Amino acid sequence: MNKMLKIAVIGGGSSYTPELVEGLIRYHDTFPVGELCLVDIAEGEEKLRVIGELARRMVEKSGLPIKVVATLDRREAIRGADFVSTQIRVGGLDARSRDEKIPLAHGLIGQETTGAGGFAKALRTIPVILDICKEMEELAPEAFLINFTNPAGIVTEAVSKYSSIRSVGLCNLPIGTKMQIAELYGRAPEELFIEMAGINHLNWTTRVVLDGKDCTADFLGRLSDSGGFTMKNIPDLAWDADFIRSLGALPCAYHRYYYMKSEMLAELLESYKEAGATRADDVKAVEAELFELYRQPDLAHKPAQLEQRGGAYYSEAAVQLMKSIYNDAGDIQIVNVRNGGIIACLPDDAAIETNCVIKADGPHPIALASPLPPQIRGLLQVVKAYEELTVEAAVRGSREAALQALTIHPLVGDERAARTVLAEILEQNKAYLPAFAAE
Amino acid sequence: MNKMLKIAVIGGGSSYTPELVEGLIRYHDTFPVGELCLVDIAEGEEKLRVIGELARRMVEKSGLPIKVVATLDRREAIRGADFVSTQIRVGGLDARSRDEKIPLAHGLIGQETTGAGGFAKALRTIPVILDICKEMEELAPEAFLINFTNPAGIVTEAVSKYSSIRSVGLCNLPIGTKMQIAELYGRAPEELFIEMAGINHLNWTTRVVLDGKDCTADFLGRLSDSGGFTMKNIPDLAWDADFIRSLGALPCAYHRYYYMKSEMLAELLESYKEAGATRADDVKAVEAELFELYRQPDLAHKPAQLEQRGGAYYSEAAVQLMKSIYNDAGDIQIVNVRNGGIIACLPDDAAIETNCVIKADGPHPIALASPLPPQIRGLLQVVKAYEELTVEAAVRGSREAALQALTIHPLVGDERAARTVLAEILEQNKAYLPAFAAE
Amino acid sequence: MNKMLKIAVIGGGSSYTPELVEGLIRYHDTFPVGELCLVDIAEGEEKLRVIGELARRMVEKSGLPIKVVATLDRREAIRGADFVSTQIRVGGLDARSRDEKIPLAHGLIGQETTGAGGFAKALRTIPVILDICKEMEELAPEAFLINFTNPAGIVTEAVSKYSSIRSVGLCNLPIGTKMQIAELYGRAPEELFIEMAGINHLNWTTRVVLDGKDCTADFLGRLSDSGGFTMKNIPDLAWDADFIRSLGALPCAYHRYYYMKSEMLAELLESYKEAGATRADDVKAVEAELFELYRQPDLAHKPAQLEQRGGAYYSEAAVQLMKSIYNDAGDIQIVNVRNGGIIACLPDDAAIETNCVIKADGPHPIALASPLPPQIRGLLQVVKAYEELTVEAAVRGSREAALQALTIHPLVGDERAARTVLAEILEQNKAYLPAFAAE
Amino acid sequence: MNKMLKIAVIGGGSSYTPELVEGLIRYHDTFPVGELCLVDIAEGEEKLRVIGELARRMVEKSGLPIKVVATLDRREAIRGADFVSTQIRVGGLDARSRDEKIPLAHGLIGQETTGAGGFAKALRTIPVILDICKEMEELAPEAFLINFTNPAGIVTEAVSKYSSIRSVGLCNLPIGTKMQIAELYGRAPEELFIEMAGINHLNWTTRVVLDGKDCTADFLGRLSDSGGFTMKNIPDLAWDADFIRSLGALPCAYHRYYYMKSEMLAELLESYKEAGATRADDVKAVEAELFELYRQPDLAHKPAQLEQRGGAYYSEAAVQLMKSIYNDAGDIQIVNVRNGGIIACLPDDAAIETNCVIKADGPHPIALASPLPPQIRGLLQVVKAYEELTVEAAVRGSREAALQALTIHPLVGDERAARTVLAEILEQNKAYLPAFAAE
Repeated sequence: MNKMLKIAVIGGGSSYTPELVEGLIRYHDTFPVGELCLVDIAEGEEKLRVIGELARRMVEKSGLPIKVVATLDRREAIRGADFVSTQIRVGGLDARSRDEKIPLAHGLIGQETTGAGGFAKALRTIPVILDICKEMEELAPEAFLINFTNPAGIVTEAVSKYSSIRSVGLCNLPIGTKMQIAELYGRAPEELFIEMAGINHLNWTTRVVLDGKDCTADFLGRLSDSGGFTMKNIPDLAWDADFIRSLGALPCAYHRYYYMKSEMLAELLESYKEAGATRADDVKAVEAELFELYRQPDLAHKPAQLEQRGGAYYSEAAVQLMKSIYNDAGDIQIVNVRNGGIIACLPDDAAIETNCVIKADGPHPIALASPLPPQIRGLLQVVKAYEELTVEAAVRGSREAALQALTIHPLVGDERAARTVLAEILEQNKAYLPAFAAE
Repeated sequence: MNKMLKIAVIGGGSSYTPELVEGLIRYHDTFPVGELCLVDIAEGEEKLRVIGELARRMVEKSGLPIKVVATLDRREAIRGADFVSTQIRVGGLDARSRDEKIPLAHGLIGQETTGAGGFAKALRTIPVILDICKEMEELAPEAFLINFTNPAGIVTEAVSKYSSIRSVGLCNLPIGTKMQIAELYGRAPEELFIEMAGINHLNWTTRVVLDGKDCTADFLGRLSDSGGFTMKNIPDLAWDADFIRSLGALPCAYHRYYYMKSEMLAELLESYKEAGATRADDVKAVEAELFELYRQPDLAHKPAQLEQRGGAYYSEAAVQLMKSIYNDAGDIQIVNVRNGGIIACLPDDAAIETNCVIKADGPHPIALASPLPPQIRGLLQVVKAYEELTVEAAVRGSREAALQALTIHPLVGDERAARTVLAEILEQNKAYLPAFAAE
Repeated sequence: MNKMLKIAVIGGGSSYTPELVEGLIRYHDTFPVGELCLVDIAEGEEKLRVIGELARRMVEKSGLPIKVVATLDRREAIRGADFVSTQIRVGGLDARSRDEKIPLAHGLIGQETTGAGGFAKALRTIPVILDICKEMEELAPEAFLINFTNPAGIVTEAVSKYSSIRSVGLCNLPIGTKMQIAELYGRAPEELFIEMAGINHLNWTTRVVLDGKDCTADFLGRLSDSGGFTMKNIPDLAWDADFIRSLGALPCAYHRYYYMKSEMLAELLESYKEAGATRADDVKAVEAELFELYRQPDLAHKPAQLEQRGGAYYSEAAVQLMKSIYNDAGDIQIVNVRNGGIIACLPDDAAIETNCVIKADGPHPIALASPLPPQIRGLLQVVKAYEELTVEAAVRGSREAALQALTIHPLVGDERAARTVLAEILEQNKAYLPAFAAE
Repeated sequence: MNKMLKIAVIGGGSSYTPELVEGLIRYHDTFPVGELCLVDIAEGEEKLRVIGELARRMVEKSGLPIKVVATLDRREAIRGADFVSTQIRVGGLDARSRDEKIPLAHGLIGQETTGAGGFAKALRTIPVILDICKEMEELAPEAFLINFTNPAGIVTEAVSKYSSIRSVGLCNLPIGTKMQIAELYGRAPEELFIEMAGINHLNWTTRVVLDGKDCTADFLGRLSDSGGFTMKNIPDLAWDADFIRSLGALPCAYHRYYYMKSEMLAELLESYKEAGATRADDVKAVEAELFELYRQPDLAHKPAQLEQRGGAYYSEAAVQLMKSIYNDAGDIQIVNVRNGGIIACLPDDAAIETNCVIKADGPHPIALASPLPPQIRGLLQVVKAYEELTVEAAVRGSREAALQALTIHPLVGDERAARTVLAEILEQNKAYLPAFAAE
């Protein structure tokens, strides 16, 4: 176990990469990376160069024996890797901007990973990820795919159904939630056990255990006083106390798009109308600033501004996961994996996001304390059916599955809206959806 | 098997009763009713008198030995009955009118049986039906409850979970659909086999078999040309051909409230704004006219105008069901029963609406040809979760279950709207919801 | 629907065929067969000739326009058939004799369809039936396979898993049981509804309904007085009253090999020791006599002696099934079909034997009144696991699946016995098991 | 978390207790027991006194602040306990001797925990354990019940179904197996991950993972060379290599009673015939010797002879479990818990034995890598059905459930043998089975 590890980062030119580099440096003693191989596409060459140089400066400053490679040759990056992490954005921020604007133009929520926007992103992303998996099957069949690319749950389901590669889908939301709950109780995160159940970006905290006692009811009570937890990039509307008590669980930040649909939509529409911009446009500006910083030849650490970007705990989550696999740690982390009966009301081959024991052979999900109640089950099932159809649409280039996916999504839920929005999505993403052209 | 049967009709003063009487007369040779006992509440005494007299004139004209009793004593009506049919409207048309208007006032679909309107109706109806069941357990424990009262599926689930009485939920939509498909093919209804799967008012025709051949694809093709089937009381918007093909099944008329939510809502809002009235108000007018007719002392048959009322096939469905039970017929009818594993993606104790073999001990559901596809499964599961919560809310008087039920319903789907609408429903129906007062 | 039908009978030289011919003649008005094509293998040519001539004489006497063909060309027989029925015995009675003797030689029950004997028969039979299915897929893809060949349940499971042909497995035991129960109550069989659940030759009568009332408890009480029902070829040991009451169901005749293992084994061993013969040897003698009769040129009806052979109701069962399919009858018959969730404790793709509605597109199983209790569930599950492994062993020629199949069978249940018996079975059936040679 | 803990040991006079005391002393720094309360029944008073004194000497020698109490007052022992461990033997070794001899007298395997012997033990034990649980519900509702008493799986299922107490069933077989596998590979136990699935004493090792690689096939190959693992008290017959490979898993030592039924039975019968004694009689002799040793006033440690007794790792297993709960360790241990969907082919409320993460709120089972194959599934299901019926028999005093339990057990499997053996078991255990008297 003392060989030096090779990590390939697909989408290595991402502004998030310094997060990851910082983590790899911090944990090098227990996770001895020997080669960090950043790979990107030709359009991202300049960014990749900037990030590669920053990474090299960071490593140099650390004094650690990590070789940093920046390359456009994906096969070389993957060959012999121990971990392949993916943080790609097919179509770039321009595509994201379209994903957000198409639904808004029809009075629907336009969001990067949820609803019609997330659907478009899934269609573009899944074929690329499955291509990467095919290369891994050939060049690094034992490596783990650590997927950050959103929609992380749908991507995990596609990989698990259509590839033999061991993969884990990762999101910073669960670890963030756990940190916030720990803070609420004035405890260290490792002192509490939280049960999270659901799917990526639709995940309920169903149980909080402190010192062996179930304190979920107490937690839900405190929560409604505190205004609830949220994510950087989601408007922080407070949860109603009665609603939370009757739900019997803490929703995640993205639940606001469902449970507070009207207000969230109003807010998105207003800021779009006022500024003519969506979140993608803000991010573009932030990214430009970040790269300005990254280019400074004396910068050799992750700049504080990156946290504003919304990626808190990303590095933490990723390095912790790889480190626990490498060290056969057996600790519990909340990641996206194949269901296999853990959430009884979902298909066995669905991807779910829940507590897993991380062993050297990957994550093993653990049983829920009790079956999910109907108020959680119903919403979860309909969104999972949407995800199942979306995977089929992306893999087979099926307009039929695509139309049905959008129709049953609670944030669309109308076949006429679905047809209109689908037509625009397919049209505007034509360049990224060859499978649909073939039909 | 040659004793004369006693039928108790709870809500006997309903304008639909002549339908039923006509059926009982028509099928008397194979379903020998000896006593027809119409019972109603004090507020309905005058209507009951009118209907009772019309019924007596119809029977007299037929020359059959059926004794017609009209009474306010429900226990006496139930005592010794072979079949108890329920066609009640707790709170009358005024309550229905409120059910329709409360959601509309908040920009939500206001419909008698679907969405927030149907939810309010369920809260009022379930306690009364369970009271009837308790009396049946005492006075006619072997009788079948034939329930027409909407929302018929939710009511069936409540009875099946909270009573030992054998009950069947009945709707005229499935038989109507079958008639329309038969007509499309120029065949007699008994010549075709259709598989319907789902729950009451959310039921998909998933398979059409003619002469032993599966002709579902052909049927869905023809259908999109024909504009689709509908119900009297639901705006007849045509189904899109692509949508139907990708769905792989025929939706029912009520599916328009889901799949065409925006247009249906717009239509409801417009007619409400224009006329200040909803469907309940129209029905009031129709009812008044009908009772005017019924009062004519020389009327001794079901008047043609009743069919305008929307109850086509109601008599057919009800008498066919009771007749098949009485005669151990073994024919297939589509009714509401306990799931018991037939629809694998729903709980075993859920009420479903599907093909059943009707034997002397009641309906036995038959297996589906294949599991429901995700596009059907997802919507079905979330609406069933709503129904499960609604049963709990009604039986336990639980505000918590009620709030969650409304929140996950696809026609509400927003906890803030749910809270507002729930508060108004509870307030305006206070007189009918003692269980909620107790909380 | 008025074309004349073609029936192909594979194994047409069987002594049972006159049963079938008689049935086809009797029901010709509602099941208008135009061509009866008997096909057999070269080794059976003489028998086929005898049967063919007898069939022709029977038809001639009836005056019906049925063409009888006897041929060795299986493809011609299958081409264009509406129904293909299989009643083959791969390896003949000699193979059966070996199936019975190998287990007995090791102190295990040796029986034609159950335990190690039935296992050997399954290994020989499944490949032949799957070949027939392949020819049907080419030459008569819309035809139904009506399979009588034992072990009928295992064969049905193999066909359902490995062929696209619609098939039904058929046994005379369920219809016989129903007749006996009807007789016990002095009623016509169609007047009672019995629920049978399980798999072929391991089937429990779990419910008896008369006039719409569940009279199972009464039935089980009467039963223990009556000594129980049985089959011609199974020693008629009486069921213990306490045992039956605690079981809560009527076992089938073959259950004696399980529940009365010791006595049944003792009896088989004794008659083997005494006479040096098993049931197969008796049957050989009966067959010889029957064919002597069949050869008489003036015989033009099914001789009474055939019923001694054990095939009572075979014709009845087969013709009833084909007739109901042809006529879209919708009546209930107990046949072997794919589970599809009806018996919740078995895999969905397992073959089960239970009540089905017979429609033009085949049998549709109907829901059980309640889940099977543990005393039934446990035995059923272990025998079904044996069947699943046996199908795998036969299809893939897998010694590993074969060894495990025998090991968990309750009538073997010891891996050392399983290994010994398996080695002998494979050796003695080498000629019929090419798939195993390949391994 | 720094209060001193109270442990109550029901059956504290057991010869195993010094094992436990040794463990409590060894791990005192991370599992700070302040009071060890040994309790026993009046018949065991002398043994309790001997053990109590030995325990006190052991503690004294250790210099640790553990108060040792020996008492006949069970309520006082339980009051305020943090952990209650049960290691009782209802009826003593005399009852065990009868459990072994009754089946042998009828040609059936007579074993302490398996088959008819284990069944008798379950009938006697379950009511006593449920009484203890009732006292815990009153006097120590937050305490964990750590149950060692056999049959540990059946007892766990009874507690989980009929009590609100958190309980874990514990056996030394899994930890022993893990130790042996580790030794085979020359590794420390914590370096390997083994998946065990099944129920107590019928548990398969389905997966061995070393350094993140699945090496199950390699392991099964090595195993058949090594002769297999076993337990002190089970004859060590070697597993056949072909059998193990086709099974695809390592059986546990108790599987020999199933897979090698004939030889095991022959061996038991022979030693019974030769010596007139069974294992219980041997144990009596060993116990007498042990207590002779324990009485020596200068003995202040666990004597080496105790390991001959068969209890290797018992202390290890028990203290590790309590320690991990107390410390919220999150390590993986193989214990008996409620299934909750982990083994999909068993009921949710069945007790299973499998890998669990041990947290402060108890064990959380983790998902299996894949569903159990049919060769494991079938045997597991039938034995679990036996266990389910046995729990019902014991709790309700039901002769009917008892008869069916024995009938379907693979080591009985014959209703006539079951009836005979059941009658003797009920007769000879009358004093311990009041529930059956009531019937």
